[in-house]
Amino acid sequence: MRPLVVQKYGGTSVGSVERIQEVARRIESTVQAGNRVIAVVSAMAGETNRLLELAGAFCKDPVARESDVVVSSGEQVSAALLSIALETRGTRARSFLGHQIRIHTDDAHGRARIRSIDADRLAAFLAGGGAAIVAGFQGINEDTQDITTLGRGGSDTTVAIAAATGADACEIYTDVDGVYTMDPRIVPDARKLERISFDEMLELSSLGAKVLQIRSVELAKRYDVRVHVRSSFKEETGTWVVPEESNMEDGLVSGVAFDRDQAKITLTRVPDRPGLAAHIFSPIAEQGIVVDMIIQNVGADGSTDMTFTVPRNEADKAVEIVRGVAAKIGAGEARTEGDIAKISVVGLGMRSHAGVAAKIFEILGGEGINIHMISTSEIKVSVVIDAKYAELAVRVLHDRLVGTGKVDS
Amino acid sequence: MRPLVVQKYGGTSVGSVERIQEVARRIESTVQAGNRVIAVVSAMAGETNRLLELAGAFCKDPVARESDVVVSSGEQVSAALLSIALETRGTRARSFLGHQIRIHTDDAHGRARIRSIDADRLAAFLAGGGAAIVAGFQGINEDTQDITTLGRGGSDTTVAIAAATGADACEIYTDVDGVYTMDPRIVPDARKLERISFDEMLELSSLGAKVLQIRSVELAKRYDVRVHVRSSFKEETGTWVVPEESNMEDGLVSGVAFDRDQAKITLTRVPDRPGLAAHIFSPIAEQGIVVDMIIQNVGADGSTDMTFTVPRNEADKAVEIVRGVAAKIGAGEARTEGDIAKISVVGLGMRSHAGVAAKIFEILGGEGINIHMISTSEIKVSVVIDAKYAELAVRVLHDRLVGTGKVDS
Repeated sequence: MRPLVVQKYGGTSVGSVERIQEVARRIESTVQAGNRVIAVVSAMAGETNRLLELAGAFCKDPVARESDVVVSSGEQVSAALLSIALETRGTRARSFLGHQIRIHTDDAHGRARIRSIDADRLAAFLAGGGAAIVAGFQGINEDTQDITTLGRGGSDTTVAIAAATGADACEIYTDVDGVYTMDPRIVPDARKLERISFDEMLELSSLGAKVLQIRSVELAKRYDVRVHVRSSFKEETGTWVVPEESNMEDGLVSGVAFDRDQAKITLTRVPDRPGLAAHIFSPIAEQGIVVDMIIQNVGADGSTDMTFTVPRNEADKAVEIVRGVAAKIGAGEARTEGDIAKISVVGLGMRSHAGVAAKIFEILGGEGINIHMISTSEIKVSVVIDAKYAELAVRVLHDRLVGTGKVDS
Repeated sequence: MRPLVVQKYGGTSVGSVERIQEVARRIESTVQAGNRVIAVVSAMAGETNRLLELAGAFCKDPVARESDVVVSSGEQVSAALLSIALETRGTRARSFLGHQIRIHTDDAHGRARIRSIDADRLAAFLAGGGAAIVAGFQGINEDTQDITTLGRGGSDTTVAIAAATGADACEIYTDVDGVYTMDPRIVPDARKLERISFDEMLELSSLGAKVLQIRSVELAKRYDVRVHVRSSFKEETGTWVVPEESNMEDGLVSGVAFDRDQAKITLTRVPDRPGLAAHIFSPIAEQGIVVDMIIQNVGADGSTDMTFTVPRNEADKAVEIVRGVAAKIGAGEARTEGDIAKISVVGLGMRSHAGVAAKIFEILGGEGINIHMISTSEIKVSVVIDAKYAELAVRVLHDRLVGTGKVDS
């Protein structure tokens, strides 16, 4: 059987008739090289926002089930247009929508998760050669047959299809040419990684490295799908996201990431009683607000200050919830601080090298940068600092930790 | 069980956010009056053309299967937007796409015909009250699950759903307020008909009275669905299209219609041998070209001139086919004439009143209008004349035959 390649093309890659023709050319050459191809496409750039605005014209918070019907039409159109472009070139192609290949999801409209995909129909089509074009970002609720969408980004579909079809390769075409040690616009020395492990990529994804969604990496890790992140505008190799390999720890730090879309909330004088943390964080989680870092300092008087971060656009809502809780549990005041940045240093090498955290604190301290919060995991150290120091911090951390691949000291 | 009303809203009726809100208001008041409502909607005005252009950007004749996927997204969006508008007003609503209520069609992409509809899902939803919003104009091919579209207009879906659900009423909302005896822009005296029979409406539909597609009327007749054609901008009663009733023949003529989109083709010196007509018209039909009127004159020498009409935009293609046939069968030359108009006078009363055809010829002759072709059926007389006389002809025919409801003489 000819090798099966699953490709993903984002909204910029299919943003115009000309771009779609360019993608068709690339798919055609992949087919002509002897592969079977499944291409997953996003909506044409700008289209999803246009549709969301249309759905939002009737009320601020349109019924999610119908909003998904509106928004999913974007990928429906681009998948069919790409099929037309391929057929026009003489390459056999066919579009497949969520309901046609039974991309079954849960019922969380707007951020649904894939439960299963019926790969048989794709396989049957591909047996005849050519390319199957799948509308990304959408599925159907198994129980009700309602259209669901998977949340922005939608490379989930790609990895899930690669897993369900046992693809030989999974290529994510995007507008960057791989995963970098840091955003090159901020750190000109940043270099493209040839390979990165799933775990490292997970930490980088969750920090605003926009290349691959965190759920996609989770899926890739679970189903052992090797993902090639590469540019849709160049032919060269990008970055392979792969299972951990023994020689990967040679480099101490794989990358530095930062996130300026978080806000910090502090609740003072929380009585130090068991179970109070749940009182505070359960109602926040119930509102779908994701809390990232949490720290607390127990004072000598047996009360504590609780500090945590949430996405900045949900900070007001979170503070309101916390104020309600504070009144009930006899805590002090809740306040929010938005002008922060979270900087993270990620690398498998941290596992076996002690003292990386201390080195990070030393480097930042040497620049006079005060650290508000610290959180560490096996392969990551994150710190929250004043937003104004964000660029400076990532530059010095990148220089000292990534630049040489070794801790300098 | 509360009465079930099926309504159709065309592209102009849902052409903007404001219009959609107006339609939602109308549906809501129908629900509040104690009805269950199924509304079938077109794409927002202009959207179908925009999508067709997009599909046509890759080649002149994009693969029909994919073109349907692109175009059907228009109704998908408007159905969901209308549902959002209703839910925002507090009226329970849900959109249903072709695949969700199994509108099964044949595989003629772009002009598919409905074979069956699964009304159970609609009934189950409506048992809980509110309005089911159906995306018009689309179905799925039962064998392949491919999206099909039904051809422009799409009121087919409405009548088919009314038939499948045993609806108590079927209302077609459009931008005219009913069926007129003639286009009031040409004949100011034209009056709105209160009722018209299916057969009369069939004859008028096929002649370019754009209110109801001919297939919709056929369906309505077959399943005995009474259709109310009315304005989406006014509250007043429009025209009911209904089974024939005994008192309908009181008026001799129900309407006058004309069609300027036909061209006339003449093939000279056709040998008078059995089967030659099939040689001429089979290849034309194979190209999907609909031939309307056909006449032939057998001359004294045993050969004949064959004249027929086809849609003007297909005349060149038809002439080319006919020339090929002419060479084979030893006929003479084929020529086309585009500057013609077809005028038709329709009425159940013609059945029992002799001499209507003669009266028509007399009226036209009195105005010095030459008749090129004549065709008569039980309830219709059609004539082909020079296009320049079209308005004059319909005015005098309307004045003399419809104006009083009696033949004047």
